[in-house]
Amino acid sequence: MIELENPDHKSGFFIFSRRQTAIYHLADPGGTAYLGGMKKIGVLTSGGDAPGMNAGIRSVVRTAISQGAEVVGIIGGYSGILEKRFQDMNLRSVANIIQRGGTILKTGRSLEFMKPEFRKQAAENLQAAGIEGLVCIGGDGSFRGAHALWQEHQIPVTGIPGTIDNDIFGTENTIGFDTAVNTALECIDKIRDTAASHDRLFIVEVMGRNCGLIASHVGLAGGAELIFAPDLVITVDQAVERIKAGMNKGKTSSILVAAEGQKPGRAYDLAEQIRKKTGLDAKVCILGHIQRGGTPTANDRILASQLGAAAVDGLLKGERDVMFGMQGNQIVKVPFETATTQVKSTPKEYLNLANILAN
Amino acid sequence: MIELENPDHKSGFFIFSRRQTAIYHLADPGGTAYLGGMKKIGVLTSGGDAPGMNAGIRSVVRTAISQGAEVVGIIGGYSGILEKRFQDMNLRSVANIIQRGGTILKTGRSLEFMKPEFRKQAAENLQAAGIEGLVCIGGDGSFRGAHALWQEHQIPVTGIPGTIDNDIFGTENTIGFDTAVNTALECIDKIRDTAASHDRLFIVEVMGRNCGLIASHVGLAGGAELIFAPDLVITVDQAVERIKAGMNKGKTSSILVAAEGQKPGRAYDLAEQIRKKTGLDAKVCILGHIQRGGTPTANDRILASQLGAAAVDGLLKGERDVMFGMQGNQIVKVPFETATTQVKSTPKEYLNLANILAN
Amino acid sequence: MIELENPDHKSGFFIFSRRQTAIYHLADPGGTAYLGGMKKIGVLTSGGDAPGMNAGIRSVVRTAISQGAEVVGIIGGYSGILEKRFQDMNLRSVANIIQRGGTILKTGRSLEFMKPEFRKQAAENLQAAGIEGLVCIGGDGSFRGAHALWQEHQIPVTGIPGTIDNDIFGTENTIGFDTAVNTALECIDKIRDTAASHDRLFIVEVMGRNCGLIASHVGLAGGAELIFAPDLVITVDQAVERIKAGMNKGKTSSILVAAEGQKPGRAYDLAEQIRKKTGLDAKVCILGHIQRGGTPTANDRILASQLGAAAVDGLLKGERDVMFGMQGNQIVKVPFETATTQVKSTPKEYLNLANILAN
Amino acid sequence: MIELENPDHKSGFFIFSRRQTAIYHLADPGGTAYLGGMKKIGVLTSGGDAPGMNAGIRSVVRTAISQGAEVVGIIGGYSGILEKRFQDMNLRSVANIIQRGGTILKTGRSLEFMKPEFRKQAAENLQAAGIEGLVCIGGDGSFRGAHALWQEHQIPVTGIPGTIDNDIFGTENTIGFDTAVNTALECIDKIRDTAASHDRLFIVEVMGRNCGLIASHVGLAGGAELIFAPDLVITVDQAVERIKAGMNKGKTSSILVAAEGQKPGRAYDLAEQIRKKTGLDAKVCILGHIQRGGTPTANDRILASQLGAAAVDGLLKGERDVMFGMQGNQIVKVPFETATTQVKSTPKEYLNLANILAN
Repeated sequence: MIELENPDHKSGFFIFSRRQTAIYHLADPGGTAYLGGMKKIGVLTSGGDAPGMNAGIRSVVRTAISQGAEVVGIIGGYSGILEKRFQDMNLRSVANIIQRGGTILKTGRSLEFMKPEFRKQAAENLQAAGIEGLVCIGGDGSFRGAHALWQEHQIPVTGIPGTIDNDIFGTENTIGFDTAVNTALECIDKIRDTAASHDRLFIVEVMGRNCGLIASHVGLAGGAELIFAPDLVITVDQAVERIKAGMNKGKTSSILVAAEGQKPGRAYDLAEQIRKKTGLDAKVCILGHIQRGGTPTANDRILASQLGAAAVDGLLKGERDVMFGMQGNQIVKVPFETATTQVKSTPKEYLNLANILAN
Repeated sequence: MIELENPDHKSGFFIFSRRQTAIYHLADPGGTAYLGGMKKIGVLTSGGDAPGMNAGIRSVVRTAISQGAEVVGIIGGYSGILEKRFQDMNLRSVANIIQRGGTILKTGRSLEFMKPEFRKQAAENLQAAGIEGLVCIGGDGSFRGAHALWQEHQIPVTGIPGTIDNDIFGTENTIGFDTAVNTALECIDKIRDTAASHDRLFIVEVMGRNCGLIASHVGLAGGAELIFAPDLVITVDQAVERIKAGMNKGKTSSILVAAEGQKPGRAYDLAEQIRKKTGLDAKVCILGHIQRGGTPTANDRILASQLGAAAVDGLLKGERDVMFGMQGNQIVKVPFETATTQVKSTPKEYLNLANILAN
Repeated sequence: MIELENPDHKSGFFIFSRRQTAIYHLADPGGTAYLGGMKKIGVLTSGGDAPGMNAGIRSVVRTAISQGAEVVGIIGGYSGILEKRFQDMNLRSVANIIQRGGTILKTGRSLEFMKPEFRKQAAENLQAAGIEGLVCIGGDGSFRGAHALWQEHQIPVTGIPGTIDNDIFGTENTIGFDTAVNTALECIDKIRDTAASHDRLFIVEVMGRNCGLIASHVGLAGGAELIFAPDLVITVDQAVERIKAGMNKGKTSSILVAAEGQKPGRAYDLAEQIRKKTGLDAKVCILGHIQRGGTPTANDRILASQLGAAAVDGLLKGERDVMFGMQGNQIVKVPFETATTQVKSTPKEYLNLANILAN
Repeated sequence: MIELENPDHKSGFFIFSRRQTAIYHLADPGGTAYLGGMKKIGVLTSGGDAPGMNAGIRSVVRTAISQGAEVVGIIGGYSGILEKRFQDMNLRSVANIIQRGGTILKTGRSLEFMKPEFRKQAAENLQAAGIEGLVCIGGDGSFRGAHALWQEHQIPVTGIPGTIDNDIFGTENTIGFDTAVNTALECIDKIRDTAASHDRLFIVEVMGRNCGLIASHVGLAGGAELIFAPDLVITVDQAVERIKAGMNKGKTSSILVAAEGQKPGRAYDLAEQIRKKTGLDAKVCILGHIQRGGTPTANDRILASQLGAAAVDGLLKGERDVMFGMQGNQIVKVPFETATTQVKSTPKEYLNLANILAN
């Protein structure tokens, strides 16, 4: 019923649908045979919360119900399975949440779920509750858990990528990334006001533990003079040189964007080092969890709506152990194993372009 | 130096660069031979203004200067050529504008420029000012003008799509579209607050003369109960039926999104007809030019930065009579003729998905 | 225990507390004697919803509980009393609502409640439910109802002004006004972007049926060229003259702000008349209910928090038939009769100042 | 011509006008006698920039021109006088700036201006340029400079309070305070989304070196569990106790708001101490200069417009050595000496109310 095209070996994922959202037409709402007997599915959010998760939950719930399935909301991520925090969802349960940040199902990181004995317990709890399949909205840790649930206990799981970091391989954007970038950008814009009035140097620390996707997008869009990504080395001397070069060209202020990397607050160290070398007093802003919140952007809501529908559609049609993502405006499916083992890096083209345009 | 791949006959455009922004690496800043002797280029914005145009101007100016060319800003669109409103631009001319709505070059629609004799005058004015090539930021009308300048007078022109309507064929998004959608969405969110408090029916009229791209994106992202696009017929009876069905399912309020079509203000007519048939008092909001303004989103600034650089790069490397756009995250070049004669329609998948999810 | 100062006969209200929020210190949480035996109070929102109502509800609930009283939320305004839609509230019932637009208690306008026999029924329902006093958050219609409940049935009621229109006498600001003004202002700012790019004429229609407070604040803060208030006559000829004078002074665009008055959508009529007289094509935006929604501003939340606490405090201490408002940064109490019979008018000083500054 | 009422000895300021903006009617545009021969005035912004300063500049320029005076903009604060950075202003110089953050006149803190010999030079520069009076927009440091200019060299100066900190005695609000509070509040709201999803503890550091006005407003409006002001001692043990009490009442997350005090970044120290005592991992956000930027709120623009007009009006009518502020919705004049020597403290009522309402 679904044409699965040949895998693209270079990129490591399958194209699920050539026509962006064509899959929604294939649904056969009445056919229980079509559901493979799957009458009840669960949905959970896991890992760090991200704006747009609620739009994803809404899409999962309403798509599933429109296809004849029941939906159970699991509260608090994987811990919620262990603690049997199950809640029946109907069409109205997800009314008026599409615009809300956070997640109505709450989320969390479960240390217990990393141990096989607890996953066994989880599988038993799901079966006891009649939950025959699962849609998981989260990041790579969440997908590793989902992958294990399938491998070890044959619980059918599909996933959609929800994390502001955009560090999931196999999808161009994760749900929440666009909002986080725009939130950080609004902050940069405000600093730009004061920078233009005052002839100053600013360091804005954004999220991004391992990859610099937020930093590179925010830096390019915000016209930053310099972008520090966790996976690219810039020495303080190089930074100082760049700041001075800008001043020589007539710039009266500079904004540096730095990913937090392994140590939130490191912008203060950077400021201190710049101060020692130049005497310039860099002002520091640490955006922190501000970037996780806020009303999701249109893109995040649309992405979440599309992928949520695809994840339900796929699950009901027999897909297992895969994430649904978006690539080149097409919905793709990516094995959890691929999504969680391959790595996205900071796009150097963005940094190069930012470099030219910040002249 | 640039690999031009075979045209994709189905889509009507050429892929300019497989790697998203790879082209910026190809530049050979010092080589005047490479510039083909082109020492001075002009840049203008034309048609309705769109948020992100300033980011595009900034990218054109700074990319060109980084490649050794001079840049002249033309004030007021094509009329500015006729009136010789030329202004030399340097790196600082575009400082601190990346976040500004509108366009520092001002824009306009020139009736005169539609006549050959005025285009002849324009070509002469450009030559007299030593402007050897042109980057045009605008919509389809603007590209028709650019196409004629090349066809009739061999003025080399490249273009980038700047219009909130996203009605340019050959690029997934135009500069300004993402901002306009998010602006309209913020308005819908506010109405959602009051709708949830009050049990009411709302009609929000958004821009979109010929196609329903803004309406469909806003409607899907905003959770609208019904979306009216200019190119799809929904009768008032169908609308009334849908509103009543929602109420029967327990919905206490409904938000309808309507593209303005050929007649801004038509939401009042729709409200009146619904009132007559149902007695329900629909409240009307007409967003109008609010959607043209505001700080551009990250996406619009990044798109404008990338396409602005590509348009300069292409122009200096010998591309003519083409628009640069973005398709599947790749920069593509599209002949002006293709971009201005083929038509984008409202994506029905969006409407279908919106329909399912608004249950 | 409370020093009631002499009435200020000119202004028609009493000063309730010289020190802005001193009253919160007077509370005697344990003392039931102090509560005058009042153990359970109700809270409702009525009339058009306004941003900040939720902050008001939160303040009423938590202040009352902190003083030893129980609180019942009444759903849907006065109709909720007639329909016995009573809901027990605890500290957690109002968690995480301070930032939400709309009202969790929903609101409405009850035609029945205007009739004495229904008010009798309401009083009986309240007594049957053990609700001994009422805090009403709403506008003048709501206060007339509250006044009647006290006059006819000795139900103790205090009120706080919640309406975006700011048309309640006896308080400088009503809850929701500041948010509505800022929302409209954001729209004006967006139009300003496009106006500056394009040399155009805009008419922005804001709320305000009888008085021009929103229009005058938005117009002054937005730098509007002309402000139309419902209670001040400006002829189209005067408007045209003003627009032309601006152009003569070098203005390239004009923004007019018009209160909707008795007929939402009247901006189209105005545009049409200006078009006939000048040939200028004025673009129209009708903000409508957008102004009712959105996250409340800091001022609205603080005002709602302060007045909510005062209304509970006053009710428990024996105040009846009064609204609590803010005047010159002092909490004042105003008899409902005063608040609902005297009229606020559009501040002419604002219009004069706007006039000078829009030069 | 202006009725100066008796000083209110308790509060230390004079009421300048009973009717909020009545002064604008008193102007006698044509009368040069009225101007006391003052034909040219200067305007500058000084100290930290604040949103709304541009609205203030606009008001000063247009009011002065409407009264027949010329205006010179001084670039970069007091340093601009020393460096003779004078720029003639006309009506169009301040077009389209009312909504811009920052200040078009740039600002700065001049160390030289603290020395008498440089003030002597400044006075000579002003006289040489024909600048007969000065309007200064800034904070207490700026007013001390203005006071010295008058005392030592009889340069007539009036001032209006522009600083986000709101730490100027004699005016309820300073220009920029309302915007800064709302900016910080938006950040809190975003954190609230993620806090509600995740059961966490957050510390948000806001500006405020000596007084806790931003912290107390943001904390009350944001529903913070605890507010740290620079002038009020809360021990870490008290904080820990409060956090635990909240958890016992069922709270799943807590947001603490802390003024930066003498050491920006101190929220990290606080987080570390809480971690040691409770094991709870508090997440930190440092808003920093974000709070200085952004589009000014309606209140800040209106305040700046009113006070700017009053400062010109006063200067032309013979007022010297005074700041114009707003008290109880009346424009007041306050001697610079009073404004700069008396101290505003954190309003304890706000903290008390926040305490009750955060239950």
